[in-house]
Parts: sequence; structure tokens; C-alpha cells
Amino acid sequence: MFVIGELINGMYKGVAAALERRDASFIVGLARQQAAAGADALDINCGPFSKDPAQDVRWLIEAIQKEVSLPLCLDSTKQAVIEAGLAVCKNKAIINSTTADEEKLKVYFELAKKKGADVIALTVDKRGVPQDKERRLELAARIIETAAAQDLEAGRLFLDPVLMPINVAQAQLFVILEVIKDLKLLAPEARTVVGLSNISQGTRDRRWINRAFLLMAQVAGLDAAILDPLDAELMKTMAAGELVLNRNIYCDAYLEAYLKTKK
Amino acid sequence: MFVIGELINGMYKGVAAALERRDASFIVGLARQQAAAGADALDINCGPFSKDPAQDVRWLIEAIQKEVSLPLCLDSTKQAVIEAGLAVCKNKAIINSTTADEEKLKVYFELAKKKGADVIALTVDKRGVPQDKERRLELAARIIETAAAQDLEAGRLFLDPVLMPINVAQAQLFVILEVIKDLKLLAPEARTVVGLSNISQGTRDRRWINRAFLLMAQVAGLDAAILDPLDAELMKTMAAGELVLNRNIYCDAYLEAYLKTKK
Repeated sequence: MFVIGELINGMYKGVAAALERRDASFIVGLARQQAAAGADALDINCGPFSKDPAQDVRWLIEAIQKEVSLPLCLDSTKQAVIEAGLAVCKNKAIINSTTADEEKLKVYFELAKKKGADVIALTVDKRGVPQDKERRLELAARIIETAAAQDLEAGRLFLDPVLMPINVAQAQLFVILEVIKDLKLLAPEARTVVGLSNISQGTRDRRWINRAFLLMAQVAGLDAAILDPLDAELMKTMAAGELVLNRNIYCDAYLEAYLKTKK
Repeated sequence: MFVIGELINGMYKGVAAALERRDASFIVGLARQQAAAGADALDINCGPFSKDPAQDVRWLIEAIQKEVSLPLCLDSTKQAVIEAGLAVCKNKAIINSTTADEEKLKVYFELAKKKGADVIALTVDKRGVPQDKERRLELAARIIETAAAQDLEAGRLFLDPVLMPINVAQAQLFVILEVIKDLKLLAPEARTVVGLSNISQGTRDRRWINRAFLLMAQVAGLDAAILDPLDAELMKTMAAGELVLNRNIYCDAYLEAYLKTKK
């Protein structure tokens, strides 16, 4: 599982405060902690309350990439913020994210090609989040076709079927498991990704729901997840899941061994 | 998930000692604790060191059924012990277990019919534990056909694909997940069951492995598991799994709600 650490997000108080006072050591510390806990990439999001998101994202990236070489996942719905991030990012970059609207795909795929970035593409468009499997697959097909038409390799795409909170759209979770399986058939080279914490937003006892979904998605073939790598039980459950699926060889120190396979 | 509590087993020191001194209140306490934690049935096993297993099992059953009305799962490889248990058992009984050897199936299915018991049948025979999926399904087919020939309804069968420890036969775990799926197609009315703790025998950090496998088996369609219901995190992860699969409706108190659906 390709783990994208979610903690550098201005939504979290500590990060918002560190952004405010330009405290690079706090941010770098959080980046290092996530890397040590098994993150393969770091999501970078200045949060909803940033007064100058382009400026904040630039500062975050510059602070982090001095000390940590992991790929950085530039997380914004605004094109200007993504462009500002890409302009300074020297680590491998992942654009997070584009919707499946054709004009937007074209612009983002051009950006990705120019900057050598990978792209997370959501199976949503102007019409909103699909309610069924078929519509999600239709949008995924559009993403893949548009990428192909622009000569962007499928291997540089992360397809995100978009998780909704379990207390809002419970029935969709099983649908998403099916979509993940089907996406692997539709485009074996593209990777699938989910923003795990979305499913438990606003619920009590979030951790169990996150764990349960992640394991079920592992069986379905999920390739990547944006999650909290400092949730040690989540990481341990995931490492155990990799063993059950025979993707790592069992040893008593399986979590440590799993983390080493990532270095 | 039909949960069969595994804790009344002479393998555990406390149970062995209680058996030795005929301490019914200890045994009944353990039965009640498991029931409160979500067990739908209780496994009863006098353990490998019992000097008189038939006598011990009789005593266990008589002590428990005075106080607890859950089905009892008579767990022994010896026919005489199963018969001794069935002779005194007033609660619903489940025979645990028969191999898929034809002569044995015939005898146990006759017993089950006579006593109104359900039967756990293992997909193993004299040739040992199958190494592949096909052989397991072949043995399952033999179990189902033999039951049909004796007019024992498929709904009274629990098919157990036999879990091996992950540190001994790691590659088999994924095979078992496939077998569970296929068994649901082969015999939708029969239930599938696993002895969950088997997979982590002799491993460190057993709980994560048990949880990971259980969740993956839930997706595959597992109907029942013999497990430790006092592992609260396991039960909570399982309850969350039922939500992800949309089998229970989400509410904040989902574990409590899940346990209530069992009463």
C-alpha cells in the first residue's frame, strides 16, 4: 500500500498555528514523523482558513523539501494553488486533485506532463458525486481516455472513487469496494486511491471504521490511501492485512519488516 | 456474523483448574461474559489434558445450560465425547467437528439428525489438509452431497475450510478467502465457519492478524467464526465491518447496536 500521510493540513490546529508563525521545525517534524511511521508521500494542504493559499503552500513545500525527500501531494481544489506548489516543488509531485470534467483534466494533465507530476483524479464531475458504480466507472473511463489522448501514461494516474462519510452515504461504501475491484480490471496500470478519513467524518469511534474499510479495500486491490500514518494500530492492521494477502512474508516483527520494505 | 465464543477450553489454565475442582461458577461466569460480549454460541472443549473427556464435557454442559441458553458447540475429535455431550445437552447443540471422510460424515449426520444438532464439517480427510482450493471445494461437495443423501438440510451444516497458522502456511490464507467465496456459490444455504485464532498460533502480536483476516473474510461472505468475544477491539472492528458492508445501519453507538441485533 502506497501511504500518503494526511497530517500536514491547515485543518489541524497545530499546523494552522505553525503556518501562521512560519514555524518550519514543527512542519518538518510532522513530515519526519509520518515518514518514520511508513508514509510513502506527504499530503500538503494549507487548509480552509488560509488567507493566501498559494503563498502558504509554497512555504510549506520549501520548508519540507529541504529536509525530507518524499513525494509531495499538492492538495487543493484551486488551480492557482497547484501551480504555485508545482513551481517550487523539487521532490516528486502528485497533483491532488482534478475532477473528471474534460476541460479540467486537459489542463491538469498538461501541467502534470510539464512538471513530471502524477495526478489524483476523482470520479466526480460538475454533476456531483455519482450515486452508483456505473457512473463512477464511466467517469474513470473518461479520465483514462483523456490521459491516453494526451500521452500521459496510465501509471501516473491515481483514480479516486471518492469516499463519502458512513453516516451520510453508508450504502456507498460497499459500492466503492466493487468500484476499486473493477478499476483494477479497467485500467490495471493506473493506481486506485482513497482519502480514508473521509468515511468516518463526524462519527464517534472513527478508528475502527477506518481500519475496517481499509482492510476490505486491501482485499479489493486498493493501491494507495491518504491516511494518518501515526495511527499505529491502523498501520499494524494494514501490515497484518498485507500478510494475509501474502504480499509480505510473515515474521514476528512484521510491522517493522513492512516498514522496511518501504525504505 | 454468528460468533462462537472459544474461551471454555481446557487448553486455558483457568478453565483447566475450574474443571479440576468442579468450579461451576467460574465456568458459568465465562459463559455469561462471552454472551454479554456478543457470542451467539459457546464452544465447549475439555482440552487436551482431560483424563476423562466424556465425563468432563458432560459436567461442563450441565453446569452451563442451567444458567445460559445459548447453543453449545461440542468440540472434540472423539465420537464418544460428542455422544456423551449430546446425551445431556438440552440447549441447541452444534457438533464440532467431523472430517470429510465418508464413513465419519454418515455417522455424525445420523447423530445430528437424531439429536437435532447442527454440524461443523472440516474440508479435510484422511489425506490431510488440502493444499489448494480445488481439493477443499471437492471435499465440501462431498460433505454437502452426503448430507443431502441423508436428508440433512444444508442449513444445518457449517463448512470449515480449516485455517492454518500464518507462520506455517501463509499462502493458504488468501486461498481460504477464495474458498469462502466459492462455498457461498456452491452451497448458499450452508454456512461457512473458521476457527479464527488458528491463524495466529505461535505468532507475536496475534490480535492484528486475527482482525485483519476476520475483516477480509467478512467481505468474502464468512457466516460464522469461533473466536474470543472478549477481545473488544476484534468485536468492534467486526461491528465496523458490518457497517461498511451495509449489513447494519450506522449509528454512533454501533457496537452496542450490533450487540443488540444479536439478542
